[in-house]
Amino acid sequence: MSTPRAQRPTLALVGATGAVGTVMRSILSTREDVWGEIRLVASARSAGKQLEVRGEQVTVLALSEEVFDGVDVAMFDVPDEVSAQWAPVAAAKGVVVVDNSGAFRMDPDVPLVVPEVNPEAARERPRGIIANPNCTTLTMMDALGALHRRWTLTELVVASYQAASGAGQPGIDRLYDELEVVGGRRDVGVQAGDVRAAISDKLGDDSPFPAPLALNVVPWAGSDKGDGWSSEELKVRNESRKILGIPDLKVSATCVRVPVVTTHSLAVHATFAQDVDVAAARQALVEAPSVVVVDDPAAGEFPTPADSVGADPTFVGRLRQALDFPRTLELFVCGDNLRKGAALNTAQVAELVARELTGA
Amino acid sequence: MSTPRAQRPTLALVGATGAVGTVMRSILSTREDVWGEIRLVASARSAGKQLEVRGEQVTVLALSEEVFDGVDVAMFDVPDEVSAQWAPVAAAKGVVVVDNSGAFRMDPDVPLVVPEVNPEAARERPRGIIANPNCTTLTMMDALGALHRRWTLTELVVASYQAASGAGQPGIDRLYDELEVVGGRRDVGVQAGDVRAAISDKLGDDSPFPAPLALNVVPWAGSDKGDGWSSEELKVRNESRKILGIPDLKVSATCVRVPVVTTHSLAVHATFAQDVDVAAARQALVEAPSVVVVDDPAAGEFPTPADSVGADPTFVGRLRQALDFPRTLELFVCGDNLRKGAALNTAQVAELVARELTGA
Repeated sequence: MSTPRAQRPTLALVGATGAVGTVMRSILSTREDVWGEIRLVASARSAGKQLEVRGEQVTVLALSEEVFDGVDVAMFDVPDEVSAQWAPVAAAKGVVVVDNSGAFRMDPDVPLVVPEVNPEAARERPRGIIANPNCTTLTMMDALGALHRRWTLTELVVASYQAASGAGQPGIDRLYDELEVVGGRRDVGVQAGDVRAAISDKLGDDSPFPAPLALNVVPWAGSDKGDGWSSEELKVRNESRKILGIPDLKVSATCVRVPVVTTHSLAVHATFAQDVDVAAARQALVEAPSVVVVDDPAAGEFPTPADSVGADPTFVGRLRQALDFPRTLELFVCGDNLRKGAALNTAQVAELVARELTGA
Repeated sequence: MSTPRAQRPTLALVGATGAVGTVMRSILSTREDVWGEIRLVASARSAGKQLEVRGEQVTVLALSEEVFDGVDVAMFDVPDEVSAQWAPVAAAKGVVVVDNSGAFRMDPDVPLVVPEVNPEAARERPRGIIANPNCTTLTMMDALGALHRRWTLTELVVASYQAASGAGQPGIDRLYDELEVVGGRRDVGVQAGDVRAAISDKLGDDSPFPAPLALNVVPWAGSDKGDGWSSEELKVRNESRKILGIPDLKVSATCVRVPVVTTHSLAVHATFAQDVDVAAARQALVEAPSVVVVDDPAAGEFPTPADSVGADPTFVGRLRQALDFPRTLELFVCGDNLRKGAALNTAQVAELVARELTGA
């Protein structure tokens, strides 16, 4: 964009200090610079801090109504209740809010947008708010969108392998703390509860996770939604339906936290309305601009979270025809939950709006 | 059993020194003692070692034809090719072999037995060999057997969270080694490949796993079986069909290794021929003698591998009705892959045979 900065849209980044906010600042510093002023906003506690964005030190402002004066677009990464309160305040001042919380995702007047899948939805925003999907859902949307366009998705059975950073910086810190306790100990992981006891002894039980994560997997993420379902599992179902525009898509998800710092992985059993050829599906994924196919397991090539973290694309591998389900493909997907799963998608949506506002 | 030891059947434990063999000796030392002499057998390299079983020091014998003289039952836990060679040698001498390798599992003349599911199959053994299922399959058999008896299983979609010890003692050692490298480091897990580089730097790349396991998950277990499938995934399909006696059971599995020492976990999407009521399913699982239901997630109660390791039962939780699949239940299952998944089931099958031989 050759427009001088003064003529470009003003962006507010609300929640600039958190795990996602930190990645957002990094992304804003490396992508094509479509923004004029960038204001960094956080809670009163962080106000006055200096944080870097686009190579410049910027003073963090406390969240207030006035902070949105002259702002065109605001990216929010704050807890649901903060978004619920403040996104409408910003929108009432004419700011287009791109919100990464769960507060508005299922609101019929708020579009839920993945630029590679449903960019057109971003233009219809009666409340002035666009929602960014949950990171677990987002991990598979680019790949499934590419397959759905061609073969029409009808059913999804998903099991997740979710990273600690899905619970933000406290989740990252807790996993590192727990690994520091068990790393080098060869007497744990062998009797029921010994990992729990070792960690509890050193760190106490105040954790973002409902069980130890080191040397363990935790089959529960989010809050209790009744009938045995977690909020995370219902988000995968409801948000997939909304983003893909398939209101009757059959979805069943099991969400499990694993001891990985960042990058969610999903084992996806995807059923289509039409016969799917694996070679054609692979080609459709290879052609999807935001998907990288890594799929030669005999040669050690498959996606893993530790090999995908910090990168923008969705990595897809283990693509195969389900043997007993003729219209079903199996695939394993890895995506950085702080980037495409949160900050990157939010930035992409904000850039869509910036281009719309400037007619670019 | 009040019979004097001299009148009880003689047992040979072939592969007494490995990860499963060690658990077998522990199990033989704690279960009801149905055995007369117990011979410990291993490779020539381990011959002469003293190992403890039933509180007594026993000298390890080198594997040979003579070692089976006077033996009634042999439990084998050795690599496939060793079983393929030696199980028929033992059987030809009249020994009933209970084999934990993959060499005979799909042989139509070899029963594949889980005592809680198909104990009757153990009596028909034309080759004198009974096979013990793969540990991943075994993790869910007790629970699915209990549900299948009542509602008739038709489809399974499974994603696994498999422990390092599924690759034996070298797998356990590698995971501990890797955790020692990354434990305490907060600079890894943040950029693609940094975990791989840190581990490779300290430990080299000679690993039982095809990618780093610490701070990672590895969506590949076993060998390449073509069309994108791993041997582990096909075992889950083929062995589930054989054990449950459902030759046309539809199965699709994704097998993933996670950084857990011991205890496999499975997310199971199980579809039945009849409508299934969650409360009735829960009751059927509670009544299954080898299953423990741990299922109150809002109170932090769900099975995890670190809380299940070293215990005999299968732990089942996260039981719920799939929202969009009327005859499908979702459940999360944890079972110690060295105990029920290997040594315990082998011992249980051997005890079935001992009781048959002694008419007890």
